[in-house]
Amino acid sequence: MPHITLPEGLPGITAGFAFRPETAKPLRELAEVLLRGPNTLTSAEREMIAAFVSDRNDCHFCHASHRAAAAHHMDGRYDVVDAVNRDYQSAPVSAKLKTLLAIAAKVQQSGKQVTTADIERARGEGATDREIHDAVLIAAAFSMFNRYVDGLATLTPTDDQAYDMMGQRMAKEGYVRTNG
Amino acid sequence: MPHITLPEGLPGITAGFAFRPETAKPLRELAEVLLRGPNTLTSAEREMIAAFVSDRNDCHFCHASHRAAAAHHMDGRYDVVDAVNRDYQSAPVSAKLKTLLAIAAKVQQSGKQVTTADIERARGEGATDREIHDAVLIAAAFSMFNRYVDGLATLTPTDDQAYDMMGQRMAKEGYVRTNG
Repeated sequence: MPHITLPEGLPGITAGFAFRPETAKPLRELAEVLLRGPNTLTSAEREMIAAFVSDRNDCHFCHASHRAAAAHHMDGRYDVVDAVNRDYQSAPVSAKLKTLLAIAAKVQQSGKQVTTADIERARGEGATDREIHDAVLIAAAFSMFNRYVDGLATLTPTDDQAYDMMGQRMAKEGYVRTNG
Repeated sequence: MPHITLPEGLPGITAGFAFRPETAKPLRELAEVLLRGPNTLTSAEREMIAAFVSDRNDCHFCHASHRAAAAHHMDGRYDVVDAVNRDYQSAPVSAKLKTLLAIAAKVQQSGKQVTTADIERARGEGATDREIHDAVLIAAAFSMFNRYVDGLATLTPTDDQAYDMMGQRMAKEGYVRTNG
């Protein structure tokens, strides 16, 4: 049961958004720009970073929903997303994405853990400054979203199909709704 | 030196904001709503939560600048802000704020650490659901801002007076500038 009285029946972060529309607006906009805005990283790649960080933060709602969003950006390839979570070094993704996941893994712990060597490895695989910036900020943002969702003890669906539908909507319609 | 090529001479998060205006917009707006928007918690109280979490995340830039902002909301009472950071239980702040700081300290570690007992203690001191929500989200948001600032290795001024001026501007003018 949520720690505070949230609108009933809404899963995860959507309950926090409905409770406090003033903070929901910039939070939704941040997710939209980071995960679906114009970018040289694909939305699938960015959603995989989000799911990966959420898994390391042990946030089931964020992990399961962004896992599904990432898969829906790749014709349902849950296997790729799961391979990244399990062991990204051996996952069937680009060498560049692996270096960005390595940076995201450091940021999930602390920003201070990112080293010049991590950045040089990413540059060596062709990552731009903008891609490195976005990987850092996605990892940082999910360190927030995860804490927000779990700090309020929001409702966490256990049904995989609920997340599949959520992920489909997130991938297709995004994070900013006209009705707030 | 910053990990990526950021606009020169800008301290801390302002360099990230200048580098990527698309993400700066929601990030600035989030800070504004959380720390300066209409609220039953004072801006001083909210800035103290921000400084407290930033200190625990060892983010010097965020700690020093929000410490100064909090002090400027209290006629320069740095001693109160520092007492909170040192040992909030004995600091000269309200019993309610102490229970919200206890929740923020848990969120800084992980949202999952917040217990029903923590929430009941806050309610017992008169905290509303909205105040509990905002304490959780401020702590979560600074877990992001801190990682963003340190994950890019942004420029960190060492001069206390630079932070005093920054904090004064943050307290008086806020986080959303008309020129973005």
